[in-house]
Amino acid sequence: MDAAEFRRRGREMVDYVADYIENIEKRQVYPDVEPGYLRSLIPEEAPEEPESYEDVVKDIERVIMPGVTHWHSPYFYAYFPTAHSYPAMLADILCGAIGCIGFSWAASPACTELETVMLDWLGKMLKLPEDFLAGTKGKGGGVIQSTASEATLITLLAARSKIVRLIQADHPDRSETDIISKLVAYSSDQAHSSVERAGLIGGVRMKKIPTDSKFSVRGDALERILKEDKAAGLIPFFFCATLGTTASCAFDCITELGPICNAEKMWMHIDAAYAGSAFICPEFRPLLNGIEFADSFNFNPHKWLLINFDCSAMWVKKRADIIGAFKMEPLYLKHDHQESGLVTDYRHWQIPLGRRFRSLKMWFVFRMYGLKALQAYIRKHVGLAKEFEAFVRADQRFEISADVVMGLVCFRLKGPNELSENLLKRINSARKIHLVPCHLAGLFVLRFAVCARATESRHVQEAWCHIRQLASELLQELLH
Amino acid sequence: MDAAEFRRRGREMVDYVADYIENIEKRQVYPDVEPGYLRSLIPEEAPEEPESYEDVVKDIERVIMPGVTHWHSPYFYAYFPTAHSYPAMLADILCGAIGCIGFSWAASPACTELETVMLDWLGKMLKLPEDFLAGTKGKGGGVIQSTASEATLITLLAARSKIVRLIQADHPDRSETDIISKLVAYSSDQAHSSVERAGLIGGVRMKKIPTDSKFSVRGDALERILKEDKAAGLIPFFFCATLGTTASCAFDCITELGPICNAEKMWMHIDAAYAGSAFICPEFRPLLNGIEFADSFNFNPHKWLLINFDCSAMWVKKRADIIGAFKMEPLYLKHDHQESGLVTDYRHWQIPLGRRFRSLKMWFVFRMYGLKALQAYIRKHVGLAKEFEAFVRADQRFEISADVVMGLVCFRLKGPNELSENLLKRINSARKIHLVPCHLAGLFVLRFAVCARATESRHVQEAWCHIRQLASELLQELLH
Repeated sequence: MDAAEFRRRGREMVDYVADYIENIEKRQVYPDVEPGYLRSLIPEEAPEEPESYEDVVKDIERVIMPGVTHWHSPYFYAYFPTAHSYPAMLADILCGAIGCIGFSWAASPACTELETVMLDWLGKMLKLPEDFLAGTKGKGGGVIQSTASEATLITLLAARSKIVRLIQADHPDRSETDIISKLVAYSSDQAHSSVERAGLIGGVRMKKIPTDSKFSVRGDALERILKEDKAAGLIPFFFCATLGTTASCAFDCITELGPICNAEKMWMHIDAAYAGSAFICPEFRPLLNGIEFADSFNFNPHKWLLINFDCSAMWVKKRADIIGAFKMEPLYLKHDHQESGLVTDYRHWQIPLGRRFRSLKMWFVFRMYGLKALQAYIRKHVGLAKEFEAFVRADQRFEISADVVMGLVCFRLKGPNELSENLLKRINSARKIHLVPCHLAGLFVLRFAVCARATESRHVQEAWCHIRQLASELLQELLH
Repeated sequence: MDAAEFRRRGREMVDYVADYIENIEKRQVYPDVEPGYLRSLIPEEAPEEPESYEDVVKDIERVIMPGVTHWHSPYFYAYFPTAHSYPAMLADILCGAIGCIGFSWAASPACTELETVMLDWLGKMLKLPEDFLAGTKGKGGGVIQSTASEATLITLLAARSKIVRLIQADHPDRSETDIISKLVAYSSDQAHSSVERAGLIGGVRMKKIPTDSKFSVRGDALERILKEDKAAGLIPFFFCATLGTTASCAFDCITELGPICNAEKMWMHIDAAYAGSAFICPEFRPLLNGIEFADSFNFNPHKWLLINFDCSAMWVKKRADIIGAFKMEPLYLKHDHQESGLVTDYRHWQIPLGRRFRSLKMWFVFRMYGLKALQAYIRKHVGLAKEFEAFVRADQRFEISADVVMGLVCFRLKGPNELSENLLKRINSARKIHLVPCHLAGLFVLRFAVCARATESRHVQEAWCHIRQLASELLQELLH
């Protein structure tokens, strides 16, 4: 394919994509295919000779679309949203064309520098303390990680490395493995599975702190367990707080937890993967109070801030803590400016070496929307969730299972779990909308997450009518 | 921006991209900017109100391009290539539009299933043993990782988890931390820095095996160190072999190393990040002989197989080894089919949870090129490297520092390192071409890596004339 054909095919692809998005609600949100459906639809081997582009494109509808779960359909209410916008997609086309790998400043200065400044822009939108910003006298800065899982892991590893160094400074005879065997990290019992996984990868104990009736970790719960663990000779070193848990969008009480972490010299990382985007609105910003105690903070603009995956924003108060943990300097990656103290080599800030020019997406989205429209977008989703909550509350057969703070409504049929399990099965089998469940305090709960950019009030009403109807059928059948 | 405007702006962006690529050799390959250049060119904060698209686009040339290192310029010979092709870019537009997150089969069946089949296609192109393929009676399969660094890390962690389970099965009283403190992993002293980093992250010893005069690890070198380590009570558990080292594209002798690893019950991972693409050519496939001894294998189609970053292909012989290491099953990620044994939930195969629909790029590239054209592309790059090698060999002032097997030529000025260091400085200051150095056996060496799709014989000739000219100037000045 030469440039001339790319111009033509690119235009066609842009039109295909625009058609797909404009008409997405006509597609069934969840596919009917059975496991293994795809293999028989295509050849067993790659072709020897080139195929025509027409044949490839025809296969999008024949092979791919029947097996797609349409995350951007207004009938998709599962998991949490993944972001999607036209400006982000345009920026991604440019990102692919430049196609640089920004592991060091020299590998493409623009790639590194735009990222640093975009993380400052975003940090200011969230009113992060100045310590976290790069363009200040502070020692902090931001970076794009691929996912919140990686942000949790890299901060846990940095904290592990820091505590080992600290202890060895006083006790040069203690081995690293001996110290690591005594370390203990903490998170909420509601924390995302990736937090527990970070502990497994890092080879450290990870304890889950019991949450209160609002599914929040409180200071006294952490203090209790710290006391026990220290008495047992363990070394607490890391606490991962969650703002907006995956199950119910609950918020750990970081104003209570932060001072404890600081006093104990434990690293406090805050994972606000979903909820973080909302902190650009003044009315939600108080939920981030206590951030001043944190060592690192992360959320996913690729969830709720209209920047296509992947774009997980992470800030640290002391960049030296991250960089120091895993710095490797082979000659082929060295460059003239790196010792100047003026440049950022993001390879030291992350697990992988390679990285795409992802800040272009942030730049396009922030400028094409502007802060006010981004705030309006957050408020619209929260409003839709509140609307759904009101429907649920007005129906005596249902109950709300957790405070509705943002775009997620946790609800269930009153009574035994089997009822709600059965209802969810009917909902997902009907294929009209798509939801996933969670467990909250032993109860089986349905999660209604406002996800798509295309979701409007009429879709939420339609979804509720559908759910109510299925519930009526279910309860009716049980009576007979 | 609505769909109508996206159609228009998308067309413009496709044209901008086509213009960029068609005219890339007119741009200076390495930028002139100084650290911090970008911050002053743009506002300090995101705008409150939307800006016009024209203003955003104007800033691409004003703000971004002056700071871009043009990896796809035919004057770029640094690092290793990063792949770039029109079909991959078209597929990426589609990937962004579908915008699904394929962490489980249910999250988008097509995303998972196309990936499994594409990894089988690619595995067959490489003539991998059947054990590694998913569509067979074997227990293996492939997955797309973001980078080779992550593939090394995930396999090391899987191996760590496996050896701990094995030892604890016989000695239930031994703690995990005690076992981990005795573990030892190995790699070549030429291995990529990410291999050492994987050891640091995993909290295990990583020893570097000395290489022979060809920069290859040989069986006897590994055997010697294994004997010592076992005598010292250590537990060898993982060996990362490199096929195509970053410094000089050297190949560890896996036909010797594989049987040793198997006999010692050590996990053998093969990292062929750059060189792996060449194994689709029958004449290079013998370099992969010994793969039958490996537990896992990885290379980066996003380096040399025309599939834009990120697309790092990894295969394992026993998928249960990977999945078993870090399986977490929160309710919100469960789905009906997962216990059927028929589906793949790729979240268990990788560090992050989220993942893009990257197999679309493989599908488009394999079909739009066909195997023969991909082979021709590899051969062309190797041919260009051989051409450059011949130029170097014909000039008495220079020497070749390592065998030229693929698209990389390691060379230097005869004599003290200062000469070659000085030459490289002049080359990169002149900005006509861009190279990076390496160390080989104490010598400072220049790496000439054929990188761009646009590189032709005339560019290589031009590069050589330029280098020779700068060398003459340098040597002339030293005489006076």
